[in-house]
Amino acid sequence: MSIITLTTDFGQKDGFSGTLKGVIWKICPRAEIADISHEITPQNILEGALILWKSYRYFPERSIHLAVVDPGVGTQRRPIVIRTGHYYFVGPDNGIFTPVLEDAEQSNWKVEICHLKNVGFFLPNVSSTFHGRDIFASVAAHLANGVPLTDLGPFIDDPIRILLPKPERTDYGWRIHVVAVDLFGNLQTDLPVEWIKDRGNAIVKFRRHEVKGVIDTYGAGTPGKMIALADSEGRLEVAAVNGSAAQVTSAKVGDIIEVIE
Amino acid sequence: MSIITLTTDFGQKDGFSGTLKGVIWKICPRAEIADISHEITPQNILEGALILWKSYRYFPERSIHLAVVDPGVGTQRRPIVIRTGHYYFVGPDNGIFTPVLEDAEQSNWKVEICHLKNVGFFLPNVSSTFHGRDIFASVAAHLANGVPLTDLGPFIDDPIRILLPKPERTDYGWRIHVVAVDLFGNLQTDLPVEWIKDRGNAIVKFRRHEVKGVIDTYGAGTPGKMIALADSEGRLEVAAVNGSAAQVTSAKVGDIIEVIE
Amino acid sequence: MSIITLTTDFGQKDGFSGTLKGVIWKICPRAEIADISHEITPQNILEGALILWKSYRYFPERSIHLAVVDPGVGTQRRPIVIRTGHYYFVGPDNGIFTPVLEDAEQSNWKVEICHLKNVGFFLPNVSSTFHGRDIFASVAAHLANGVPLTDLGPFIDDPIRILLPKPERTDYGWRIHVVAVDLFGNLQTDLPVEWIKDRGNAIVKFRRHEVKGVIDTYGAGTPGKMIALADSEGRLEVAAVNGSAAQVTSAKVGDIIEVIE
Repeated sequence: MSIITLTTDFGQKDGFSGTLKGVIWKICPRAEIADISHEITPQNILEGALILWKSYRYFPERSIHLAVVDPGVGTQRRPIVIRTGHYYFVGPDNGIFTPVLEDAEQSNWKVEICHLKNVGFFLPNVSSTFHGRDIFASVAAHLANGVPLTDLGPFIDDPIRILLPKPERTDYGWRIHVVAVDLFGNLQTDLPVEWIKDRGNAIVKFRRHEVKGVIDTYGAGTPGKMIALADSEGRLEVAAVNGSAAQVTSAKVGDIIEVIE
Repeated sequence: MSIITLTTDFGQKDGFSGTLKGVIWKICPRAEIADISHEITPQNILEGALILWKSYRYFPERSIHLAVVDPGVGTQRRPIVIRTGHYYFVGPDNGIFTPVLEDAEQSNWKVEICHLKNVGFFLPNVSSTFHGRDIFASVAAHLANGVPLTDLGPFIDDPIRILLPKPERTDYGWRIHVVAVDLFGNLQTDLPVEWIKDRGNAIVKFRRHEVKGVIDTYGAGTPGKMIALADSEGRLEVAAVNGSAAQVTSAKVGDIIEVIE
Repeated sequence: MSIITLTTDFGQKDGFSGTLKGVIWKICPRAEIADISHEITPQNILEGALILWKSYRYFPERSIHLAVVDPGVGTQRRPIVIRTGHYYFVGPDNGIFTPVLEDAEQSNWKVEICHLKNVGFFLPNVSSTFHGRDIFASVAAHLANGVPLTDLGPFIDDPIRILLPKPERTDYGWRIHVVAVDLFGNLQTDLPVEWIKDRGNAIVKFRRHEVKGVIDTYGAGTPGKMIALADSEGRLEVAAVNGSAAQVTSAKVGDIIEVIE
């Protein structure tokens, strides 16, 4: 079984994601392909990085994760493959794999990064505007066919990284960040709830809102009430019971939330 | 062949539906997965119930239909599997399977409902906010692997039901409901057209609009003209030829339409 | 391997595209199905034709491309299958396959067009509003099973065609058309860049904007600057570096762009 996932900012109207699947199946007919997202905000590398990061570990070992949010397409930015943990990652060298590299460092996984210089694994004609099709989908399919990294190009050790938001220690607790706002209007942050000393009594302050205690579930609160809880990745999340915290607070990505322990 | 379908209110941006596929393939690598919809209005159980209902019968026998519109995630609401007709249904016990249960009653199909109490078929760590991933996708994949219902938990016979809109008899015909508005702006109702005595002469009244006769196809009318016809499920539909009846009439789900026979 | 692609204006909320997959798998369980797009503007045949055209050649030989943008559903318009090049095309005879037929003419491929008259390959009950499900998905699945064209109905040679925008020669160069605006706001045109005599010195005029030179990549320009380059199909594209040309220029499909050679 050969699984390839797709994370892009291509949208779902123009047929680009379908074209990736055609390219993949032409080279590796047995590949199973899953869309993670094609709705990344155009050219928002951080958003793409975080959405891929939340999903990739749930796939079977040896899955190949293609990620194409690529404002530098057609320039000198390098096309790369990363092998780490149980997975492969294919895409532009622009920092979209930074959270994956951090996972590897925290877990002491071996990391191999290959600069895709061997054009023999690209489509015959490489456009300057659609490397997702002409380079990345093609290389991902060859990987799925068992082509070893060493055939694809030289190894490198200086991948581009982006700055990921991190919780900052304060005198009284944590200064943390809204890293994403999901469809339900829940505010996702960068603070692992297990870092909070006394969850039951912690106070989460955001604009004029103040929430006491980190609870366990959306259900435990009056509808509309602001709550703080652990999200599905164990990070602190601010939500409104059966409502949208984003709407209530006008929060946006990058906003600061204070946690008082 | 093992087919699993997905109907959720997760949207398509945040990667949640991709994560479900990863979880499924890790447990059942040969599963074929089809998205029915991830665009259910957040937490709208009735909408999810009706969209799943229109689609499920078109899948091969033994398909497993996962449906996660789950405002009660993390509370005491039960996770369940229903087996009826030729299909399995996996999701929260909140009424989303009500139309399926009604189909079973009308067709005298055997119904088995299992309360998913055996955590051995869940992911090792169950979050309180993403049971779609940690419980339902995992259980669906085990079902696809052939795990029998009896292994998953005790049978129950009191599933939660929601109130489905139903046509009401009036002195002169029917009082019916707009149950959905599709992408084209067509108004879907709850009245099987075969219940109308004299279709050619029936009058369909909605707000200031009056349509005479239930016709056979969109094509048979002047562009822009309001028409009444049988939709793809044999229910009465109000449409505007090559236009949007929803726009013309400002109709919304729940509105009442009168049919005079 | 049997690949079926889907291009429709069904949207992704109402479950219609999922239903197509159910119908296909019931008839041809081994079919692999790829969505090209379900976000074609409702009933916009030209848009559907161009999006399918950009994608279809990237799929493996013998792939079956289903395209359903079908304002005439339920009328006398013919359901057809076209076989040309290495592919099959299934859908309504309303011009949506015009670019494919032009490719065949330019490449001298044999073209066979079959009027789907044999109802034995449809679903048992054909609605008048959802031929995508009842006719086209069913026929595509039978094709994937190896049913020959001759079994499906009589051959015809007068398929409906739509008018495709074409570059027009002027005294000083070309008058060309915006044929699509993609998610990034790039303006796609109908002019193959290789038709331009001196790309380095050509001037592209659109409204009050004037761009000198057709360059190779998005990257080669100041952010926000308007540029002209070859798109992924080798056609002239007008873009704004790391921005949206559509927003800057308020361009829309059908607008005229002048190219001075």
